[in-house]
Amino acid sequence: MSSASSVDDFPTVGIIGGGQLARMAQQAAIALGINIRVLAAAEGDSAALVINDVRVGNHDDPQAVFEFAEGVDVVTFDHEHVPPSILRELQASGLSVRPGPDALIHAQDKIAMRRALTDAGLPCPSWGSIAADAPVEQMREALAAFGEKVQWPIVLKTSRGGYDGRGVWLADTLEEAVSIVEGNPLESPAAWLLEERVTFRRELAAQIARSPHGQAVAYPVVETVQTEGICREVIAPAPDLDADLAIAAQSIALRVADVVGVTGMLAVEMFETADGLLINELAMRPHNSGHWSIDGAVTSQFENHLRAVLDLPLGSPAARAPYSVMVNVIGTDKGDLYSAYRHVMARDPHLKVHLYGKTPRRGRKLGHVTVTGEDLESLRERAHHAADYLAGVIDE
Amino acid sequence: MSSASSVDDFPTVGIIGGGQLARMAQQAAIALGINIRVLAAAEGDSAALVINDVRVGNHDDPQAVFEFAEGVDVVTFDHEHVPPSILRELQASGLSVRPGPDALIHAQDKIAMRRALTDAGLPCPSWGSIAADAPVEQMREALAAFGEKVQWPIVLKTSRGGYDGRGVWLADTLEEAVSIVEGNPLESPAAWLLEERVTFRRELAAQIARSPHGQAVAYPVVETVQTEGICREVIAPAPDLDADLAIAAQSIALRVADVVGVTGMLAVEMFETADGLLINELAMRPHNSGHWSIDGAVTSQFENHLRAVLDLPLGSPAARAPYSVMVNVIGTDKGDLYSAYRHVMARDPHLKVHLYGKTPRRGRKLGHVTVTGEDLESLRERAHHAADYLAGVIDE
Repeated sequence: MSSASSVDDFPTVGIIGGGQLARMAQQAAIALGINIRVLAAAEGDSAALVINDVRVGNHDDPQAVFEFAEGVDVVTFDHEHVPPSILRELQASGLSVRPGPDALIHAQDKIAMRRALTDAGLPCPSWGSIAADAPVEQMREALAAFGEKVQWPIVLKTSRGGYDGRGVWLADTLEEAVSIVEGNPLESPAAWLLEERVTFRRELAAQIARSPHGQAVAYPVVETVQTEGICREVIAPAPDLDADLAIAAQSIALRVADVVGVTGMLAVEMFETADGLLINELAMRPHNSGHWSIDGAVTSQFENHLRAVLDLPLGSPAARAPYSVMVNVIGTDKGDLYSAYRHVMARDPHLKVHLYGKTPRRGRKLGHVTVTGEDLESLRERAHHAADYLAGVIDE
Repeated sequence: MSSASSVDDFPTVGIIGGGQLARMAQQAAIALGINIRVLAAAEGDSAALVINDVRVGNHDDPQAVFEFAEGVDVVTFDHEHVPPSILRELQASGLSVRPGPDALIHAQDKIAMRRALTDAGLPCPSWGSIAADAPVEQMREALAAFGEKVQWPIVLKTSRGGYDGRGVWLADTLEEAVSIVEGNPLESPAAWLLEERVTFRRELAAQIARSPHGQAVAYPVVETVQTEGICREVIAPAPDLDADLAIAAQSIALRVADVVGVTGMLAVEMFETADGLLINELAMRPHNSGHWSIDGAVTSQFENHLRAVLDLPLGSPAARAPYSVMVNVIGTDKGDLYSAYRHVMARDPHLKVHLYGKTPRRGRKLGHVTVTGEDLESLRERAHHAADYLAGVIDE
């Protein structure tokens, strides 16, 4: 792998992780004249295919991370799995890490997140926790007490490492809950997070960008549709959202960013309930709920993430169309992606196709499509058709 | 330099030349999941900084070109300077070259262009030619006869190699014309192209994308403003353009593409005169007059160039805003680019900045800025201010 120097006084952003988020950040970096260096797990990683300055190594190997970070101006992330101890050492060596480990812990550990948000008076579902090494009888008692308090069923989550629906269970009864915790032994510092099962109308996400000196911009609040824990569809802005609720969602995201000290993009996933908003999850990086912004906003989440971590003035997050609809292309074991791609382009010349350079595999996010315009029902039909066709789910 | 393979059935486009056009094509390729390989003159070239698969070599070195082309699915261009003999050999080896050498000659040789367009009945200024090796007395006679026919002053151009105002002279008298041809000896196959000096209201450009099987889409006709032969500003669409004239300009571009057999993007630069349109120059690649399309059109010229040369269905060229204004950032010997960049971002959060990774140098195209919206005068003020500030021409 190689490196070449650009204009001397333009910075290099080091991104740990070579997934599609780093890939899409490269599109923004090309326009900005910013250099990106990526630490990818393999040469064939999504971002490694489209970036000149690639280092191959693991995000939890201190030596690989230190070698990668040498000479970059700021370190940021494609994912949230880098051990805080490595990030603290990077900081101690004088490097800017954005978001820093003290912020990032709230995206890495769901119990740390619940504690910080609850302490700050931010709206969360009822929750409790059980240590990974608690004796079985103590676990059973805690589960029984929590289930009685919030009413069964309850949600069980591993505090660390869950992603796209993994690490989340629904338990209808105490016996089910006990068998889940017994069947999935955790290693400390991971622990069990217990949450009430929230009855919600729909899921929303509020994204903000925040720079080290405190400038922040809030994107339009979006509706997200999840299937089996994986983001499937995003509508920007969330249709028929009460204006006060939209402002409340943006205010919550700005408060969260301030409370946990985020720099860069922050996504706050929320439930819209009959009684208002409840915070579900946080992501401290560009997020699937913001992919619409590439085609639908004045400044994409990827551009604003780069601008934020470099402490550059932020760009306008305003929408460029009445509606943008984004649908993920999730792999199946069928279909010929390139031939499907020709078909969807021919069917809809306004469609924006984004593919991540990944070999199709069942359940894998291969890309997304976005359409922008006025007629929401037509936009949704077109986006879903294209995504399903690309995934091989339909063939007409 | 290194290369890594992506999804097996997705094509690789080989681009000869590592300038900003190949750089901006990479942004489109990232979304499309298409791989780009670039043949750059140097590792630090604009495109070479942001592409994974870079070969370093000269476009007129047959061996460098053949090695570069091995394994790509189609060869296309960042500039028009590759010798036709090399392209014919590539074609003979079974490779797709788009546009092919028989089309490209009309962008490489202005006399071939004038001849083909005149034969097809397309509107050109009055023109004539003089062979490079013509005896001085014969040159003088030809210049005198042409000057008499079209009225002095006349325009003299070298048929090959001119660019951004180089290779073009205005001669007020026969003596001036003779001293220009005597002072600038040409080597065959270059020759002298003589043209009438056109009195025009303004300059327009019409861009189309055309695929090998003949599908074509026409972009909105734009107004271009040149300073010292260098494109300075583009307004899309051209303001107050008569609807019939706009259709005439698009029809001319489609006819030109058909007559010369272009695949990919074609830009036709024209003069708007009191009597209608006259064709000035052709470019068979993404062109400065289409940079606005990255931010201002549904499908950028870079995306449609890739789609066209791969024979994929073309994307909509429709504008996304009432007006887009693009202004080039042309280097001076003053200023600190990164600090200016912070300033323009802070002043205008809607501004789209595009920098090419080039070290500032007097007269060098360093990047461009685009703003989109409704109020043309405000858009022009904002775009010019940002471009001048980035160039170091103003500091307030």
